[in-house]
Amino acid sequence: MEAKEEDVRLGANKYSERQPIGTAAQSQDEGKDYKEPPPAPFFEPEELGSWSFYRAGIAEFMATFLFLYITILTVMGVNNSNSKCATVGIQGIAWAFGGMIFALVYCTAGISGGHINPAVTFGLFLARKLSLTRAVFYIIMQCLGAICGAGVVKGYQKGLYQSTGGGANVVNPGYTKGSGLGAEIIGTFVLVYTVFSATDAKRNARDSHVPILAPLPIGFAVFLVHLATIPITGTGINPARSLGAAIIYNKDHAWDDMWIFWVGPFIGAALAAIYHVIVIRAIPFKSR
Amino acid sequence: MEAKEEDVRLGANKYSERQPIGTAAQSQDEGKDYKEPPPAPFFEPEELGSWSFYRAGIAEFMATFLFLYITILTVMGVNNSNSKCATVGIQGIAWAFGGMIFALVYCTAGISGGHINPAVTFGLFLARKLSLTRAVFYIIMQCLGAICGAGVVKGYQKGLYQSTGGGANVVNPGYTKGSGLGAEIIGTFVLVYTVFSATDAKRNARDSHVPILAPLPIGFAVFLVHLATIPITGTGINPARSLGAAIIYNKDHAWDDMWIFWVGPFIGAALAAIYHVIVIRAIPFKSR
Amino acid sequence: MEAKEEDVRLGANKYSERQPIGTAAQSQDEGKDYKEPPPAPFFEPEELGSWSFYRAGIAEFMATFLFLYITILTVMGVNNSNSKCATVGIQGIAWAFGGMIFALVYCTAGISGGHINPAVTFGLFLARKLSLTRAVFYIIMQCLGAICGAGVVKGYQKGLYQSTGGGANVVNPGYTKGSGLGAEIIGTFVLVYTVFSATDAKRNARDSHVPILAPLPIGFAVFLVHLATIPITGTGINPARSLGAAIIYNKDHAWDDMWIFWVGPFIGAALAAIYHVIVIRAIPFKSR
Amino acid sequence: MEAKEEDVRLGANKYSERQPIGTAAQSQDEGKDYKEPPPAPFFEPEELGSWSFYRAGIAEFMATFLFLYITILTVMGVNNSNSKCATVGIQGIAWAFGGMIFALVYCTAGISGGHINPAVTFGLFLARKLSLTRAVFYIIMQCLGAICGAGVVKGYQKGLYQSTGGGANVVNPGYTKGSGLGAEIIGTFVLVYTVFSATDAKRNARDSHVPILAPLPIGFAVFLVHLATIPITGTGINPARSLGAAIIYNKDHAWDDMWIFWVGPFIGAALAAIYHVIVIRAIPFKSR
Repeated sequence: MEAKEEDVRLGANKYSERQPIGTAAQSQDEGKDYKEPPPAPFFEPEELGSWSFYRAGIAEFMATFLFLYITILTVMGVNNSNSKCATVGIQGIAWAFGGMIFALVYCTAGISGGHINPAVTFGLFLARKLSLTRAVFYIIMQCLGAICGAGVVKGYQKGLYQSTGGGANVVNPGYTKGSGLGAEIIGTFVLVYTVFSATDAKRNARDSHVPILAPLPIGFAVFLVHLATIPITGTGINPARSLGAAIIYNKDHAWDDMWIFWVGPFIGAALAAIYHVIVIRAIPFKSR
Repeated sequence: MEAKEEDVRLGANKYSERQPIGTAAQSQDEGKDYKEPPPAPFFEPEELGSWSFYRAGIAEFMATFLFLYITILTVMGVNNSNSKCATVGIQGIAWAFGGMIFALVYCTAGISGGHINPAVTFGLFLARKLSLTRAVFYIIMQCLGAICGAGVVKGYQKGLYQSTGGGANVVNPGYTKGSGLGAEIIGTFVLVYTVFSATDAKRNARDSHVPILAPLPIGFAVFLVHLATIPITGTGINPARSLGAAIIYNKDHAWDDMWIFWVGPFIGAALAAIYHVIVIRAIPFKSR
Repeated sequence: MEAKEEDVRLGANKYSERQPIGTAAQSQDEGKDYKEPPPAPFFEPEELGSWSFYRAGIAEFMATFLFLYITILTVMGVNNSNSKCATVGIQGIAWAFGGMIFALVYCTAGISGGHINPAVTFGLFLARKLSLTRAVFYIIMQCLGAICGAGVVKGYQKGLYQSTGGGANVVNPGYTKGSGLGAEIIGTFVLVYTVFSATDAKRNARDSHVPILAPLPIGFAVFLVHLATIPITGTGINPARSLGAAIIYNKDHAWDDMWIFWVGPFIGAALAAIYHVIVIRAIPFKSR
Repeated sequence: MEAKEEDVRLGANKYSERQPIGTAAQSQDEGKDYKEPPPAPFFEPEELGSWSFYRAGIAEFMATFLFLYITILTVMGVNNSNSKCATVGIQGIAWAFGGMIFALVYCTAGISGGHINPAVTFGLFLARKLSLTRAVFYIIMQCLGAICGAGVVKGYQKGLYQSTGGGANVVNPGYTKGSGLGAEIIGTFVLVYTVFSATDAKRNARDSHVPILAPLPIGFAVFLVHLATIPITGTGINPARSLGAAIIYNKDHAWDDMWIFWVGPFIGAALAAIYHVIVIRAIPFKSR
């Protein structure tokens, strides 16, 4: 029992039952066993011969396509109006991004893991949850999906798309590049940290609410980061989303800041992976 | 175990346990068995002698009635005010549509399956989840419910109902008919794709969160499509809703675009059924 | 198996497995047994000697107190501002009412059943889910809680409370008393129908998502009715809430329409009870 | 069976099965056993030698850091704009506070119990759910996290942070200190009462929805209190959040009311602990 609850300790701890105070302690499933899945290999040639590998890529493409389509269309509708009051508002934009992630993670988690975001793929790759082959394939499919999604929105109303900014991410006037980068790093940290918490094998075995609610807090994380950082960068925290909008919008100022929307999310995802693996799971220090 | 996880493959795949990265992989229920239900027959005479068949029709009528009643009343309240700020706003309209679908799917899923939308019924019929008899009966009951729901709203305040547009769907100025049709197709695809994901027998057997949350992402899908496409068409993605409002409103411009709100949703639902059955489930290619 | 799925039929039905199309059909729990609880007696003297009876009453008092406190305070804050944009808005009011019901049903369901509303108590009494003694006791405690909740809000800022209308329900100008009554009847029907769906013993035994999500659709039902009918009556659908605000506000026009906010909700609750018991459950026609 | 349902009674109660009317009565888990965990000791020296103790503190630091970062950034964005319509609005601020608590409780419940708030820690300490050592350690880490979170926001845009009020809590003009204190007391009561309901060992054993949904009503409680009391105090109900913002903002009027944001939440939390332990659980009166 103790071995399950408390794998790492500085000293003897005889009171493990008393310590998690909140919901965890009273969970009925506490005693359940779990096994840490083995790290994914870097390269898995057999994977390339499996239909489920390609199906997962198609699912990532489709999910990112629908993500950009709905969100950029919402952004265009809000920016098109002189009075934000006559639209769903900036809060509506935040709901569109967060809500789509909720629905799409719910729909695709069982097919591809439901990443829909190169930063999430990168973070999970660092934690050795998927092979390098698969990570690269996912990121390519996500970027292609994002480009197509933004392209369809532009196709509906080309002039409007360009005049309303095309949903492209830029660091807004009044903020430094450093603030923009910081906002992307911490924002992505919030998202990827939530993803790690939701997909943690140990917690899933112990607390029944973790896998059941999972897509909801992940979607909320995206919503919340948008509430906070839309005024700073328009909120990227998803390099595929930033790239797709930039390619279709294709104006200089969208390209100037593009590096921020790749470097920031990748640093944030890496920090979340380190925090989860080193601090929360303490996997490196675990006795075998 | 492998047979359960990976029914279709292009080649040998020895690593099925490693591949779903996100929530699915860590699910405790992974090993559970499921059986694909057999396709529903086209015509089932015995069904017509069952009380549950008529009860399901009544439940669809009642749900679509309440759906139109609450949503069209919300639309009327928002459009009645000069300042959208003094109302629940366009975002409130989106919540009304999505929230009602959430609550009504929750309430009627166990009685009729909780379609409340001819496009959903059509998509599930294409996937052979219900008989043609039942599909036609549901669609008729949904349309009757929608007409009554809009009718009650008009009864409250006839002048206001007509002056605020009656909640009827039209392609708004600035958008082509083609854009309107596209918005309806992709919007319905998002909804019906979510419905298929939520009711997938295979996933339900494997992931505990799928059936428990089900009504919530379905409601969110409706909410999200409204956030994005209210500026384009007012958002139909439900032929009964569009028909009910048009019949009660009964002005020419509402009738002119009516075909878009039947053709679009039915194409979107068909594409979602094809995507789910061919790509995700790959049922046609499955070895018996 | 058939007996569990299909208790009432007009004729032979050999295809019960094929018919519920949506989430219900694929549920893993389908085969589980359930037993309809026996109807509650009208008067139960032993109940009066049980601490749990009084505790339930205290819980109803406390929940209705907190319900009125948070919601009326929100209403006062919104109405106090010239620009609704600088407040949480009318949509925020709807969230306050619906969100409080969600949280309070979650907290008190295990103690008192989580009614927080005389109309809900009345509907469940008609369906013989609780004794007359208990129903009367609950309604009295709910009304007392509501009065205290509104009283505390008035205590914070007496002048502001009176000038912003005190959260009292009236039929707004432009709507007839008949429309107001209709809005209260159908609005309460939506709420009580959701309550019946969420607490249905048969469904709970069969579909795992029903009891787990329960408080959420009940809260959403309240939210949605507010989105639709705030422009008509300010939305009562809860006689204790209307009474509490009227007593503390205490102006003539709040008293003139008071009957609407008792008669309407009680008719709506009765219709929901009839719909559930006769149409959905068909209990009167069931063979023993 | 009776002993499980009804530990405390004033007299004989033979009808325990009939009495909880709502969701609880029909729960499948009703018969399940539970055991009240023993009270935590005041001081537990062994705890200090456990890695999980420090990890829990780090998790509380990180969660409170992210909580302040996202929420204060949202406040700054809203206050920066002349027209609240061009921002996520006051409602968006309420969502930021409530949504972050939802996501963070979800993520950290299994590590530290997910308090993120000295008032929650204090309430659970009074109910003897954690040792004094741990309570003091948590509160210190929460305050440090809050200071850092607000500090990063100030770092992004120092001038803007100061001019928009820095997210500091003060009693707004038009309200007395007494009203502000009352708002903090009742607001914290709502939150801590929800926390107690969500983590109640007895309910968790009986109702399956309680532990699964838990983080959601806790987050909603925070959201709802913000809807109601932002116009009065800006809403504290979390002494770490008030302290962190005040230290970074560092202006006199933020310090003048600081006592309200410590005394109020601690009184509210104490009342919630008393209500739960004495009225709901009646633990002091229980026969051994």
